[in-house]
Amino acid sequence: MFSKNVSRSQFKIAFFVTIFALDCGTCNTYTKEMLLLAFVVDFLLLNFAVSAPSDDLISNLPGLTEHATFKQYSGYLDASPTKHFHYWFVESQNNPQKVPLVLWLFGGPGCSSVDGVLSQNGPYRVNDDGKTLRNNLYSWNKIANVLYIESPASVGYSYDDNGDLKTNDDKICSSHYNALKDFFKKFPEFLLHPLYVFGVSYGGVYVPMLCVRIQNGDVKMNLQGMGIGNGVTSVPMIKNSLVFFAYYHGLLGDSQWKTLTSLCCNGTPSKENCDFVTNPKMKCEMMVAKTFQYLLSLGLNTYSLYSECSTGQPTRSKQYEHAMHAIYGTKSIQFNHTIYNKLESTMPCINSTAETSWLNRLDVREALHIKPGLPPWCVCSASVTYVSIYQSMEKQYKELLKDPNFRVLVYNGDVDSVCNFIGDDWFVDSLNVTLVKPQTPWYVNQQLAGFAKTFEQIVFTTIRGAGHMTSEWKPSYTFSMLNKFLKNKPFY
Amino acid sequence: MFSKNVSRSQFKIAFFVTIFALDCGTCNTYTKEMLLLAFVVDFLLLNFAVSAPSDDLISNLPGLTEHATFKQYSGYLDASPTKHFHYWFVESQNNPQKVPLVLWLFGGPGCSSVDGVLSQNGPYRVNDDGKTLRNNLYSWNKIANVLYIESPASVGYSYDDNGDLKTNDDKICSSHYNALKDFFKKFPEFLLHPLYVFGVSYGGVYVPMLCVRIQNGDVKMNLQGMGIGNGVTSVPMIKNSLVFFAYYHGLLGDSQWKTLTSLCCNGTPSKENCDFVTNPKMKCEMMVAKTFQYLLSLGLNTYSLYSECSTGQPTRSKQYEHAMHAIYGTKSIQFNHTIYNKLESTMPCINSTAETSWLNRLDVREALHIKPGLPPWCVCSASVTYVSIYQSMEKQYKELLKDPNFRVLVYNGDVDSVCNFIGDDWFVDSLNVTLVKPQTPWYVNQQLAGFAKTFEQIVFTTIRGAGHMTSEWKPSYTFSMLNKFLKNKPFY
Repeated sequence: MFSKNVSRSQFKIAFFVTIFALDCGTCNTYTKEMLLLAFVVDFLLLNFAVSAPSDDLISNLPGLTEHATFKQYSGYLDASPTKHFHYWFVESQNNPQKVPLVLWLFGGPGCSSVDGVLSQNGPYRVNDDGKTLRNNLYSWNKIANVLYIESPASVGYSYDDNGDLKTNDDKICSSHYNALKDFFKKFPEFLLHPLYVFGVSYGGVYVPMLCVRIQNGDVKMNLQGMGIGNGVTSVPMIKNSLVFFAYYHGLLGDSQWKTLTSLCCNGTPSKENCDFVTNPKMKCEMMVAKTFQYLLSLGLNTYSLYSECSTGQPTRSKQYEHAMHAIYGTKSIQFNHTIYNKLESTMPCINSTAETSWLNRLDVREALHIKPGLPPWCVCSASVTYVSIYQSMEKQYKELLKDPNFRVLVYNGDVDSVCNFIGDDWFVDSLNVTLVKPQTPWYVNQQLAGFAKTFEQIVFTTIRGAGHMTSEWKPSYTFSMLNKFLKNKPFY
Repeated sequence: MFSKNVSRSQFKIAFFVTIFALDCGTCNTYTKEMLLLAFVVDFLLLNFAVSAPSDDLISNLPGLTEHATFKQYSGYLDASPTKHFHYWFVESQNNPQKVPLVLWLFGGPGCSSVDGVLSQNGPYRVNDDGKTLRNNLYSWNKIANVLYIESPASVGYSYDDNGDLKTNDDKICSSHYNALKDFFKKFPEFLLHPLYVFGVSYGGVYVPMLCVRIQNGDVKMNLQGMGIGNGVTSVPMIKNSLVFFAYYHGLLGDSQWKTLTSLCCNGTPSKENCDFVTNPKMKCEMMVAKTFQYLLSLGLNTYSLYSECSTGQPTRSKQYEHAMHAIYGTKSIQFNHTIYNKLESTMPCINSTAETSWLNRLDVREALHIKPGLPPWCVCSASVTYVSIYQSMEKQYKELLKDPNFRVLVYNGDVDSVCNFIGDDWFVDSLNVTLVKPQTPWYVNQQLAGFAKTFEQIVFTTIRGAGHMTSEWKPSYTFSMLNKFLKNKPFY
C-alpha cells in the first residue's frame, strides 16, 4: 500500500497537523471526526505515501526456516520521556491494509506480551531446542494486524532510563496510552483501522482502563472494542467464585467445604449467600486464607487444572507462594494496594524455557533491535514494583458501553483457576446489560468450542478445555472466537 | 511354577474334592477354611502340578512385533449351561505366582471388557492402522494377573447357545459367578491368590453384587476387595450431583441453573436441598428432563469433557440419544427397570475403530480361539437386552464391609460427566464409615494425580484430568493408584 520511497518526516508533519486540528476534548461528534480524519489521512496517504519505520523492520529472524510472508517490526515506543516499551508488531498475513488492528497485552502484572507472540496467539512457536521457530497455524495475524507491547518498564526488553520501575494501575494506563500514540506516530497508516484492545489476565485491568483513556484521549483513534481473556474483572467475584469452582472441580474436600460454607454462608452455599472475600467474621476469613494456602501448596497447575506442572510437585518454596499470592491473595494479603515487590521471573508450572533461550540469543536481540546492555529477557519481570488500585472494572465497563458502537468480548478458558470463568460470568451479569441470547454452545470443526452468552454490546464465552492462556491450549477455538468477534458474527 | 506334563484331569478331581469338602454355606470360620484350602491346594500343586489350559494359550498375536514376555490365554468360560463368556487372561509380567488376581469388568451394560485389554489397562494398545499392537507401559498386568470377561452373552465374542440375550442385574451376577468358578476350574493354581474384583461404569453394579455372591458362594475364593472406577454406585446421587457438576463446569447457563434451582431446590441449591431426580413437582421434573436433553444434544464428549468428540457435533440422531439416555435417563425414562433394548455398538464420541478392526481380523479371532461363526466384534453390543434392577449399591457395600478384611477402592476420573466424581463421593460418604484421613492430594512423578479420602476399609479418590475410562486418559496415575491399593499403601 505504501511506497517506501517517500519521506516519513513529510508524512509525520502532516499527520500531526491533522491530529491537533481534530483534537477537541469535549466533542461528541466522534463519527464526524472520524470521517474527517479518514478524509485527511487518506489524502495524506495518497499524496505523501510513507513506509512503516524501516529501522524497526525485522529483516530476518534467527531460527526461522521460511522467510515471513508478512511484515513485522520490533523496536521501542515511548511510554514517557524516560520509559521505553519494547513492541513487536506483526502485520496481517492477509490484507494488512484492510483488517483491524489488535493491541494485545499480557498481565501478571509484570509478565511479557512477547509471550503472546511466541507461545500464545502470535505467528510463531519456539521449538524445544530453544533455537528454531515453527509457524503457529492459528496466529491472530492471519486476520488482524497485531501489536504486542511489553509493559511496564523492566518487563521483557522494556526499560526506564532512570531505572524507575515503580508503577500502578493509573500510571500504567498513561504509559500504555502514550506508547500507543507513539505507535501511531510510527505507523500512522494504521490509525484508521478499527482498533481492538485485547488483554489476558491482569490485562483485564490494563485494557478497560486504556480503552477509557483512548475514548477520552487527545488523539482520536478508531476504537471499536475490547477483548478480555481470563481477565481480572472484579477481584471479589473472582475470589468468591473460586471457592465454588475449587470444590466442584474436586480440589477441596467435603470437610473443608462444609467448614467454609457454614462459616461464610450460613450453611446455605450460593453466590448470594457466600462472602468468602470480605466477610467480617474472623473465623471465615481464617478458613478462606487456609483454603487458598492449601490450593497454593498443591503443585497444581492453577493456570490449567488438567495439564502437568512443568516444575512438578512444589516444595512450597517462598518463591512459588509469593507468585501465587499475587493471584489468590487473601484478605490479609490484599489484592487491592498489594505491592508486587520483585515479581517472579517465571509463571508457576509453566515452561517458558524455550522462548527464554531463544529471546536471549544475541542474534535474536539484534534482529529485534533490542537496546544493547539490557538484562536478560524473562517471561515475568523480577524487578517491577506494581501497586494495584482497582478491585473492579465495573465503572470502566459502564463508561465504555456508553458508546453504542463499542463492543466487548469477555472470554475464559474454563479449566483455569487463576481467573475462573464463573467469576467473570458473574461480573458480566452484574453489568445488567440486556441479554440477547442466553448461553449457547458454539462449534469449531464440529467440536464443541465453548458456550457463549450474548448481550447487547457484550459477548461472554468460555473456551472448552483451555487454561489461562486460551491460545496456548486451544488455539483453534480461540482463533475462531476472535474471528467471530472482529467480524461481529453471532456465536449462536 | 507348574509342570505342563502332568494330567489336568487328575488335578481337577482333587481340586473339586477339596472345594466340596470345604463348602459349608453357613460357616463363619473363613480364615480357617482358607488355611485348610491353602494346605490342600499346596499339597495338590506339589503332587499334581498342572498347567493352565493349553487349548486357550495364546501362542502369538497378529500385529505384535515382540513376543509377549508373559503367558496369556483366551477362550470361553461357562456362565450357564448355554452361556459362554469369552475371557482373556493375562498373567503378570512379574512374578505371576506371587501377585494378586484381578478380575476386571467393563460396564455399559453391554460394553466389552476386551476394550480394557486393548484401550484401557491391558498390555496392549492397537495402533491407528488397526493392524499392529504396541505395548502399554502402564498395563495392570505388570503387578497383577488380570482376567477380562466379556459379558453378558452377545457382548464382544460371548454368546448364548440358544440366542437368549435377555438378562438383568441378578442374572448377570449369577453368570459372572459361574464364569469365575469356571475360570478357577481352568486355572486352579490361582484360587489362592488374593482376588480383587474391579469394574468400571456399570461395572459399579456388577462388581459389588458379584463380590457379595463370592462371599456367600459355594466355592471359597480368596476375595480381598473390590475397585469401582467411575462406577454406578447410587443412581439418584449420580444424577443429582450431575446438575451441580454441569453448572460448575460451565455446561449450563445461569438462566437454566436459576430455573432448576428455584423449581427443585426452593431457591437454595445444595446437596441437601436439591432433589433433581425424584422431585414430585412436575415443573421440576420437566426442567430436569429438558436439561439432560440439552446436555445430550451438545456433542460434548460426556466421557471426557475436555477431549474431542471423535464423531464431532451430533446430529441429534436417535442412535446417539438412545445411548445417552442409558446414562442420563430422566425420570420418565427410568434407569430402574429400563430395558436397554438393542444397546449401541459404539460409545458416543469414543473412537474404537482401530481395536474393532484388529479384533475382527480372521487371524486375530483364531489366535484368540473365538468360536467360528460369531458375528463381528463391537465395543458395545447391539443385541443384548438388559434390565436394570437396583438404584443403589448401598446394601451390597454394607454387606461386604462386614468382613473387616474386605477393602474397597472407589475412584473417579474427575472430568467424566457420565458417572461424575461428586455423586460417587456423596455415595461413599453416605456409607457412614469411619474417616481415617480427609481429602489429601497424592502424586505420581511429582505430578498431582488426584485427591484421596481414606476411610476404614474404603478409599475414595479422584484421578485428575481423567475421563470415564481413567486408564485410557491417565494410565500412569491409574496404575499408581492400583499399586497403592493392591499393596494397601496409604494415599497420603
